[in-house]
Amino acid sequence: MLLARVAGTVVASRKEPRLDGLTFLLLEQLDIDNEGTGGYVVAADAVGAGVGEVVMYASGSSARQTEYTFERPCDAVVMAIVDSWEVGGDDRYTK
Amino acid sequence: MLLARVAGTVVASRKEPRLDGLTFLLLEQLDIDNEGTGGYVVAADAVGAGVGEVVMYASGSSARQTEYTFERPCDAVVMAIVDSWEVGGDDRYTK
Amino acid sequence: MLLARVAGTVVASRKEPRLDGLTFLLLEQLDIDNEGTGGYVVAADAVGAGVGEVVMYASGSSARQTEYTFERPCDAVVMAIVDSWEVGGDDRYTK
Amino acid sequence: MLLARVAGTVVASRKEPRLDGLTFLLLEQLDIDNEGTGGYVVAADAVGAGVGEVVMYASGSSARQTEYTFERPCDAVVMAIVDSWEVGGDDRYTK
Amino acid sequence: MLLARVAGTVVASRKEPRLDGLTFLLLEQLDIDNEGTGGYVVAADAVGAGVGEVVMYASGSSARQTEYTFERPCDAVVMAIVDSWEVGGDDRYTK
Repeated sequence: MLLARVAGTVVASRKEPRLDGLTFLLLEQLDIDNEGTGGYVVAADAVGAGVGEVVMYASGSSARQTEYTFERPCDAVVMAIVDSWEVGGDDRYTK
Repeated sequence: MLLARVAGTVVASRKEPRLDGLTFLLLEQLDIDNEGTGGYVVAADAVGAGVGEVVMYASGSSARQTEYTFERPCDAVVMAIVDSWEVGGDDRYTK
Repeated sequence: MLLARVAGTVVASRKEPRLDGLTFLLLEQLDIDNEGTGGYVVAADAVGAGVGEVVMYASGSSARQTEYTFERPCDAVVMAIVDSWEVGGDDRYTK
Repeated sequence: MLLARVAGTVVASRKEPRLDGLTFLLLEQLDIDNEGTGGYVVAADAVGAGVGEVVMYASGSSARQTEYTFERPCDAVVMAIVDSWEVGGDDRYTK
Repeated sequence: MLLARVAGTVVASRKEPRLDGLTFLLLEQLDIDNEGTGGYVVAADAVGAGVGEVVMYASGSSARQTEYTFERPCDAVVMAIVDSWEVGGDDRYTK
């Protein structure tokens, strides 16, 4: 999994039918110092994350292992909202 | 998923039989400012996208989770045409 | 999928038994201007491609979705020989 | 698999229900000289690794092939604690 | 698949039980001129490769398609020992 900050949303009305009902979040990836890298991914939201929150997302086939995304053409899913993370006992982020 | 602009098409008459009937689009990937990165991917089109449109595509095994691509040797699929996307309330693209 | 030019071949007599009978092609990846990038991948050949031809290949589990590669430890397959591809109506390659 | 050093932990109380009970470790990836690259990944811990230990992790669908991670939306798992590794007979790391 | 040279070994006594009996090789990836790139991967050995040999490895779910690695948390496998490979008729490596 990677850490990312919810940066925005993507709206798409014309899509594969199996995607109906999914919310798509635009995530900016974070580096090991909790800074945005400029890289992004669009992920389905399985946990109700809001803009500005730090989240974890899973990619690939693992992204389909939620009730929300099962058997859908979706390759990234937000599967947790992060409370805090630390490196060597040093907090890099606390909600 | 990643965001991309439909840049062109790929024609291939000699191919694996399971690919018959698929349309292959050449997608230029977009960065977080909606600018082309110069990177591309060729994706099957599950939604009838046209050249110039901004789309989302899924990669890997998730690309086979449409009726169109099921059990085919296809690792990228356009699964949505984007209406708009925004970062921090600031529209980066509106159709 | 990505576009590549067939650059050479790889010979391996000692291999996993399930790979018997596969031909392995060395593919040089192409950029959006149809120039070689210097990057390569070794792919099984499902379509009888020849050296110098421009092809499309699929990666990951999708590479096993041909009769030729089914349930084999193979993560890249040439699944089409390209006739032509264009960007914005401008031919980048014609066979 | 890649080699990494356990650098820290990630705490997330609001998450996909199938993730309950998993411990998430922040791993810093190592280069061929056993130095940290600055790159990281968050992985579920299947072996009880501690901060500072050198571990191997598996990514993608393979990350779900432990009893601990089976059918969970998890794309990286620590599957071994490394005792030692060497290149050309030269120890790069010994626990 | 990618080409690599067997550079060393990784020893791990504490690991996921399904990994018992696997040998882990440290592979240095090769570029299109048969030179080491400095990049590496750790792969299970399905063919009995020795240090210094040039091999092919498969990644992702395809790495589990050998009898040796089936349903194990393993994302890279050496599936062939290379006898030779050439680019445009020019041998880049002969065993």
